[in-house]
Amino acid sequence: MAFLVIRENGFTVQCLVQAQPDTVSPQMVKFAAALSRESIVDVEGVVSIPAAPIKGATQQVEIQVRKLYCISRAVPTLPINLEDAARSEIEIEKALQAGEQLVRVNQDTRLNFRVLDVRTPANQGIFRIQSHVANAFRQFLLSESFVEIHTPKLIAGSSEGGAAVFRLDYKGQPACLAQSPQLHKQMSICGDFGRVFEIGPVFRAEDSYTHRHLCEFTGLDVEMEIKKHYFEVMDIVDRLFVAMFDSLNQHCKKDLEAVGSQYPFEPLKYLRNTLRLTYEEGIQMLKDVGIEIEPFGDLNTEAERKLGQLVLEKYGTEFYILHRYPLAVRPFYTMPCYDNPAYSNSFDVFIRGEEIISGAQRVHVPEFLEQRAAACGIDVKTISTYIDSFRYGAPPHGGFGVGLERVVMLFCGLNNIRKTSLFPRDPLRIAP
Amino acid sequence: MAFLVIRENGFTVQCLVQAQPDTVSPQMVKFAAALSRESIVDVEGVVSIPAAPIKGATQQVEIQVRKLYCISRAVPTLPINLEDAARSEIEIEKALQAGEQLVRVNQDTRLNFRVLDVRTPANQGIFRIQSHVANAFRQFLLSESFVEIHTPKLIAGSSEGGAAVFRLDYKGQPACLAQSPQLHKQMSICGDFGRVFEIGPVFRAEDSYTHRHLCEFTGLDVEMEIKKHYFEVMDIVDRLFVAMFDSLNQHCKKDLEAVGSQYPFEPLKYLRNTLRLTYEEGIQMLKDVGIEIEPFGDLNTEAERKLGQLVLEKYGTEFYILHRYPLAVRPFYTMPCYDNPAYSNSFDVFIRGEEIISGAQRVHVPEFLEQRAAACGIDVKTISTYIDSFRYGAPPHGGFGVGLERVVMLFCGLNNIRKTSLFPRDPLRIAP
Repeated sequence: MAFLVIRENGFTVQCLVQAQPDTVSPQMVKFAAALSRESIVDVEGVVSIPAAPIKGATQQVEIQVRKLYCISRAVPTLPINLEDAARSEIEIEKALQAGEQLVRVNQDTRLNFRVLDVRTPANQGIFRIQSHVANAFRQFLLSESFVEIHTPKLIAGSSEGGAAVFRLDYKGQPACLAQSPQLHKQMSICGDFGRVFEIGPVFRAEDSYTHRHLCEFTGLDVEMEIKKHYFEVMDIVDRLFVAMFDSLNQHCKKDLEAVGSQYPFEPLKYLRNTLRLTYEEGIQMLKDVGIEIEPFGDLNTEAERKLGQLVLEKYGTEFYILHRYPLAVRPFYTMPCYDNPAYSNSFDVFIRGEEIISGAQRVHVPEFLEQRAAACGIDVKTISTYIDSFRYGAPPHGGFGVGLERVVMLFCGLNNIRKTSLFPRDPLRIAP
Repeated sequence: MAFLVIRENGFTVQCLVQAQPDTVSPQMVKFAAALSRESIVDVEGVVSIPAAPIKGATQQVEIQVRKLYCISRAVPTLPINLEDAARSEIEIEKALQAGEQLVRVNQDTRLNFRVLDVRTPANQGIFRIQSHVANAFRQFLLSESFVEIHTPKLIAGSSEGGAAVFRLDYKGQPACLAQSPQLHKQMSICGDFGRVFEIGPVFRAEDSYTHRHLCEFTGLDVEMEIKKHYFEVMDIVDRLFVAMFDSLNQHCKKDLEAVGSQYPFEPLKYLRNTLRLTYEEGIQMLKDVGIEIEPFGDLNTEAERKLGQLVLEKYGTEFYILHRYPLAVRPFYTMPCYDNPAYSNSFDVFIRGEEIISGAQRVHVPEFLEQRAAACGIDVKTISTYIDSFRYGAPPHGGFGVGLERVVMLFCGLNNIRKTSLFPRDPLRIAP
């Protein structure tokens, strides 16, 4: 007698290979027992209710095997055992207390053998949730008359300035990889599309070794005409993300459970109407508990996290918008506040105390844009095609950008962005 | 009295600025008359039925202006007049016969001032159709249990070999831009996702100056487990594209009309069940009209076009699948036919006589994959992480890739792929 536990379409089923006159030979039982783990088999058999409950199977049925073919044979010794890769920290700790040492698979080993690692239920859940996030994002925006665009990743010059760009030779011309679709999505608004969005890779050559930075990630970008006020952009953020979170909770229950059973997390707390605080209100809340923030500076990661805690305590939400940031800490193309140019028509959005969205109204007046670029130390000549786009009639507009991997990481309360990138790229990793 | 024709949400409306006691001053009329074209205005007024029909407006109503604000002033002399950019060849020819020379805006000028060029009704239509194609693609696949993935564009080595890759320095390591998600989408299948798709940029450093090649375009990629036969992949192609064409014809009527009124085309002829011919049948059809094709070679562009004609005449379709290509003309990872290894489990798909899709069953046996790579002159060491992915149990699988810009170009019968790329990249163009 031999047991095989097989996975198919997210289910695991136990297959019983037992010698039987006429149908199953002892040789077949031997063949089944000798199959290496993770080999792929075709099975023909009779579905039945097993005598004893089956451990480790999602279905309490059994297939009594009649025919068995090995379609793809895995190497006998796998670099990762799936059992180990699927184990939660809690399980490891519990075993340790009982005097048993269980294998813990470290991050690098997981990523080196990613095709094995992603077979765990938690990882299957993570990437199915990721697929759902992108689709919820798109469906909401399409229903609000946004047009999906695809802007070039290969550009002359650097997309937003700074040193963190990947440079390359483009048919003899110096070029770089877009750090965001910022310039081209704005140009699309100048092209009369009214409201646009894009889902695509963005490239950052930063030497960041944190839990939340990657050198390549998937950007969810939005840009839209503004009729009266930059709050129109925040309204879209508000309704879009509430709709997305609702949709995830409703449609991804099994995937969220799969993630939670290996990496336990509390469901995200969010309000029906997203909380909006001004930057001034935010730093006042921090000041009230004794944390001094430079009024025209920026929040560091620690202050953001602390403010997230305070907001959760006071307002009962882990998702909120902080707006009207000091102009000095925003990119050159950010529109200053009309009533006080030390502030700007901009916002960041936070999940569980971490920034995930950055947005703003943009400067649409070419002369003023030139002036702002120069004031920020940018050589205006290098972005002339961008600035020229505003000379032929440009509507007031704004938008925002989100990292897909961060949304999934923070919605699921995961501790590392490498968990939500299928084949992550960081300063030390460009394979597999 | 002054007239302004304004565009808003795809409509054009005539605004009448006429001096009136109490409401409209002569100064305002003068201000309106002096506004440069393509400037953006806010208008407050009374909607009414005009005395005479309005030329060039989509709506036969008029706004009698009471208040008028210029939000963004365009430069007085535009590099392209929209009237010129929106003109069809037929109109130009007709005028010429009547002795009048109308301005024809050439492709390069259009692309240099793309933000103006895309404001024409035809271009607005093209990119709204493009948005719809991507969405139809996704919705169909999601409904068939495919998972959307995002694979890295930055990779070590070259994704499919060959010289046509953009190379760059990745933190001191040699790297390149993915020529397709081929390897990583296959690795995702090895990762147990069952069925995956991706929409994202692909990069080709080819020196192609044709009407249908770009250095960067949007790839629509699919990969899936195969249970029994590579026809399962062709079944998806068949149903996916028929659903997409139906959806375009049903939901994009206005956009298709807008394209057709500048660039006239016949609606695509396609069957409810997509025609499938073997490569052998295809070359026999060509042979029957006196065109000799090397039986184990490939079709050149001219032969493809001719075969498209013959298929249209015989079967009444401009969309068909040609499969069972000679193995020698397909990439190393293509699965040979089990009954004749000179052929392969592969296919191309054609619209209006041009290839748009390439697909196949892939080799999932690592030893055989190594052998095929070596036979095709590829250094196996450079693709070892890819080949190793198949050593831990790999299901039989196949897939295909499509260029989004080509689908739109050929569905609309356009003559140049630069028309369906928002900011095209070719060997000579990396701006705007």
